[in-house]
Amino acid sequence: MSIIDLNSDLGEGFGRWSLGDDLEMLGIVTSANIACGFHAGDPLVIRETVLGARDAGVSIGAHVGYRDLAGFGRRNMDVSSAELISDVIYQIGALQGVARAAGTTVTYVKPHGALYNTIVHDARQAQDVVTAISEIDPTLAILGLPGSEVLRAADKAGLRSVTEAFADRAYTPSGTLVSRKEAGSVLHDAALVAARMVQLATEGTLTAIDGSTITVAADSICVHGDSPGATELARQVRAALTAAAINITAFAPRAGDPAAP
Amino acid sequence: MSIIDLNSDLGEGFGRWSLGDDLEMLGIVTSANIACGFHAGDPLVIRETVLGARDAGVSIGAHVGYRDLAGFGRRNMDVSSAELISDVIYQIGALQGVARAAGTTVTYVKPHGALYNTIVHDARQAQDVVTAISEIDPTLAILGLPGSEVLRAADKAGLRSVTEAFADRAYTPSGTLVSRKEAGSVLHDAALVAARMVQLATEGTLTAIDGSTITVAADSICVHGDSPGATELARQVRAALTAAAINITAFAPRAGDPAAP
Amino acid sequence: MSIIDLNSDLGEGFGRWSLGDDLEMLGIVTSANIACGFHAGDPLVIRETVLGARDAGVSIGAHVGYRDLAGFGRRNMDVSSAELISDVIYQIGALQGVARAAGTTVTYVKPHGALYNTIVHDARQAQDVVTAISEIDPTLAILGLPGSEVLRAADKAGLRSVTEAFADRAYTPSGTLVSRKEAGSVLHDAALVAARMVQLATEGTLTAIDGSTITVAADSICVHGDSPGATELARQVRAALTAAAINITAFAPRAGDPAAP
Amino acid sequence: MSIIDLNSDLGEGFGRWSLGDDLEMLGIVTSANIACGFHAGDPLVIRETVLGARDAGVSIGAHVGYRDLAGFGRRNMDVSSAELISDVIYQIGALQGVARAAGTTVTYVKPHGALYNTIVHDARQAQDVVTAISEIDPTLAILGLPGSEVLRAADKAGLRSVTEAFADRAYTPSGTLVSRKEAGSVLHDAALVAARMVQLATEGTLTAIDGSTITVAADSICVHGDSPGATELARQVRAALTAAAINITAFAPRAGDPAAP
Repeated sequence: MSIIDLNSDLGEGFGRWSLGDDLEMLGIVTSANIACGFHAGDPLVIRETVLGARDAGVSIGAHVGYRDLAGFGRRNMDVSSAELISDVIYQIGALQGVARAAGTTVTYVKPHGALYNTIVHDARQAQDVVTAISEIDPTLAILGLPGSEVLRAADKAGLRSVTEAFADRAYTPSGTLVSRKEAGSVLHDAALVAARMVQLATEGTLTAIDGSTITVAADSICVHGDSPGATELARQVRAALTAAAINITAFAPRAGDPAAP
Repeated sequence: MSIIDLNSDLGEGFGRWSLGDDLEMLGIVTSANIACGFHAGDPLVIRETVLGARDAGVSIGAHVGYRDLAGFGRRNMDVSSAELISDVIYQIGALQGVARAAGTTVTYVKPHGALYNTIVHDARQAQDVVTAISEIDPTLAILGLPGSEVLRAADKAGLRSVTEAFADRAYTPSGTLVSRKEAGSVLHDAALVAARMVQLATEGTLTAIDGSTITVAADSICVHGDSPGATELARQVRAALTAAAINITAFAPRAGDPAAP
Repeated sequence: MSIIDLNSDLGEGFGRWSLGDDLEMLGIVTSANIACGFHAGDPLVIRETVLGARDAGVSIGAHVGYRDLAGFGRRNMDVSSAELISDVIYQIGALQGVARAAGTTVTYVKPHGALYNTIVHDARQAQDVVTAISEIDPTLAILGLPGSEVLRAADKAGLRSVTEAFADRAYTPSGTLVSRKEAGSVLHDAALVAARMVQLATEGTLTAIDGSTITVAADSICVHGDSPGATELARQVRAALTAAAINITAFAPRAGDPAAP
Repeated sequence: MSIIDLNSDLGEGFGRWSLGDDLEMLGIVTSANIACGFHAGDPLVIRETVLGARDAGVSIGAHVGYRDLAGFGRRNMDVSSAELISDVIYQIGALQGVARAAGTTVTYVKPHGALYNTIVHDARQAQDVVTAISEIDPTLAILGLPGSEVLRAADKAGLRSVTEAFADRAYTPSGTLVSRKEAGSVLHDAALVAARMVQLATEGTLTAIDGSTITVAADSICVHGDSPGATELARQVRAALTAAAINITAFAPRAGDPAAP
C-alpha cells in the first residue's frame, strides 16, 4: 500500500493578524510546519497552534525563516553563516520549548520562503541550516525539495531527509517547479490537483506542463491553507488519496502518537 | 563556611550594538543571566555568550523580559496572562535550544527589568511567570527579590526559589531597595560595596541607609558589568569575598560541572 | 442643516497581513485614520492607503500609537515623555512624508488603542501628545473623546480639538463608554446603530444604557471596518445620515479638496 | 580656494544602545547622515541628533537603509520596487518631521550600508531610491559614490547628485575602493589619511594602492566616528584641511544657516 504525508504551513498569524484557518487545516494534514517567530508567528499564536496540532495528533515541524517580519521571510537576505546557524537554532529551540510545555515534541524542520528557495541551490546556506539542525537535535528530519542542496547536505551529515511535492504547482519536464512568473504555474482545479496527487502517491509520477510524464520522489505533499479555496483544495486532495486507499501518515510521528489524524 | 553566588546580566548586545564586557564578567561571576531576544540579545550574541559561559563553567540563566527592544524591557506593559506565559516559554525555549546546541543547559530563570520589578508586587504576572516555568521545565530555579510575589508563587508551585541582593544599591530600614530617584540609592565606592557584600555573605545583614542593621536573605549577589567602573566593582566584590574565605559557587550548577569558574 | 464627519481606522495591515477592507471603507467615510507603522502599517500599505484616500477625497489623519506591533498598540506602556513626544513626531512625520509624495496632506491626528485610552485621563501623556503635535505642525487638528485630558490640553495649547462618538458602543448615563467587559457594551444591530447616529447628529443626544437621554458632543462618528459585519454597519450609518439630510463632511478637509466623497 | 564637505554617519544608537560619539563628531563634520529608524535610530536618538546638528550648524541628511535592525542594514535584501520606494519615502518623511519639529530641515539623502553598495551597480534599486526622493522632495541632494548607478539616475531625474570619497579607504588604480577583504584596504595612519585628503581637496587626486596617481571627484569626504580612533582621525583630517586653507563647508546648507560649524 502507498503511504504519504500531507504538510501545510500553520501558525502564520502575528498579534492582531491571523492567516489561514489553522484549525480546519489541522483536520486535514498530518504534518504542521509551524512558524517560529521570524517570518511570522508570535509566541501566543505559536503556542495555540502547537496545542492544536498536539490535540489533532498532527506532527510538528519547525518552519524556520529569515528574520524579516515585514517581508514574511520571502525576501532573499545574504546572512552570514554565523547568523544563519544561530537564527535557525534559536527558532527551533523556541518551538521545541513551546512544544515541551505542551507535552509534545518537534519532529522535523522545514525551511520557509526565501530561505527554502535559496538552499535549493546555495550550498553554503544549505550547509548552515544542516549544521544548525545537527547541533541542536540530529534526530530532527528535514523536509525539502528533491535534489536540493539542503537535502544533499542533510544526507551527508547523517540527518534524515524527506522530500515533498507541491499539490497546486505545475512541473517542468525536468522535474522542477514551473516559475510562478509563467502562465499555468499554479493549478486551481481541485479535482485535477487531487487526481495528480493520487498519481504521485501511487505511481511516483506527475504529468509535466508539456504533457510528458516525469518521475517525482515525494514523501510528503504540501498543501496550502491561507485562502478559502486553498483549504477546499487540501480537503479534496485528502479525500482523493483516502478514496484511493493511500495511507496518509506523518513521516515523522511523535513518539507514542497514533499515526495520524 | 559561607557560600554565595555572583550573577550578572550578559548577552545584552543586539546586532551591531554591544553592551558591557561579557568576556570579562564571565571570569568574575558564577551565574550568567543571558538575554533571550525580547529586550536584548540576537541569536548570534546569545549563542556566543552561551558558548562563553559554557567554557568558563558559569551557570546559564534565562533572562526573560517584555517584548520591547526599543525600551530594553524597562517599560511596564500590561500584557495578558496568555501573552506573558507564551512569551516566557518561548524565550526560555529559545535559550535552552541554543544551550543544547552548545552541549550545555539552562539551569535557572531571572526576569528582567520592568518584568522583574512588576512581579515583585503583581501577583497575576508573577503567577504567569511561574506557570510558564512550571510548564516548560519545573527543574529550573527562579532568581528574584526576597519577599517578592514571584518567589512566593514559585514556592507554592514547587519551584526552587533563589534570592538575590544588589551589590551597588542602598537598602531602606525595612529591607527594600532605596528608589533610584532618591539620593544615595546607588553606591559607587567599590571598597565599601565589597565590604558590604562580605558582611552580607557572612552575617546575612546589611547597613541600611539610615545606619540601622537589617537582615537580608540572599543566595546570590547581582553585580553589573555594563560600564568599566561596574566591572571593576564586580572584580573587587569577588576579591573581597574570596579574601574572606567565602565559597563563591553557582546556586544552580550544570550537571557534571565543576562548581564555578 | 446638521453636519458630521465619519472616521475609520485604515491602513492597519502589515507585510503579508491585511486587516479590513480599506477600499470599501474609503467609499463610506470622510476621514481616514491611517496607521503610521508603530502599532500597524508598513510603508507600502501606508502609501497605498494614502493614495486611496487621496483618490477618494477622504481626509487623512495620523493614527499614532505605542511602539508595539505584537500587541497592536493595545497594551499600556509607561513610556517617558521624551520617548512619547519623539515617537509621535516620528510617526506624524512619516505619514506626512508619504502624503507629500502622493501630492496630498495630513490634516489631523488621532491617537490609537491604549494610547487613546490612556490620554483620556493621563494628563502627562496627554500633554506629551499635544506637545508633539504643536512642535511638528500646530495646524493639525486632534480627534479624541469629549472631556478627555488630551482635548483639554489641545485647547490650552491652541490646537484645534475635534470630538467623536463611537457608533457601535453603548454609553453610561454620565456620558462615558460602557466598558467592553460589561454586557451590552457593543451594539450589533445596524438599524439601531444607524438610528442612534441620526439622533446624535441632529439632536446631539443618545439614549444611555439605562434608557435615559444624554447629551453627547461629537464632530465625528467613528465606524469600524475590520470585519464584514462592521463594514455593512458603517454603510447603514452613512445611508441613514444621508437619508436624514445630514451633511457628511470631513472636519479637516485638505486645502483645495472638494468637501467629501 | 578649494572647498569640501565632511560627512559622517550619526544617530546610530537604538534604545539602550549607543554608537559613536555623536556630539564630538558634530563639532568636526559639516554634514550629518542621520539614521532614520530602519537600520538604526529610534525616534528619541534621532530627535536628539537632529537637535545637536541644528545647534552645531551641521547640515542634516537622511541616512536611509533596508529594514534590518538585526543586521544594521548591512545585509543585501531583494526588496521589490514598491517596497523600496515606500520604505525610502517613509524614512525621509520621518526625519523631515523630526527636523521640522526642531525648526530645521533635511537637505540631502545618503543611502546606508547594503543599500548604498547595491545601488552603485543595481540600476533598478538605484532608480527606486531616486524615484522616492523625486516624489517626496526633489530639492533634496543625493550623496553617493562617483560613477554609481544611483548618481547617474539622479542626474537623469534632475536631482542634485553629490560625490564622496572615503577618508580611511584605499583605492584601486581604476578609482574604486579596494575590497575590505584585501590587505591594506583600510587606512589607520591618521597623518597619512589627513595628507591624502588634503591632496584630494586641492588637486582632486589620490595615490592608489599600487602607487599610481588617480583622479577622484569628491564634493565630500566621509569620516567615521564610531570608535575613539576614528574620531581622532576625523579630527586630524579636519585640522589638516583647515591648515591647508581649504574651505570646509556643507554641500547642502540649510537655508539661512551660516555655512558650517
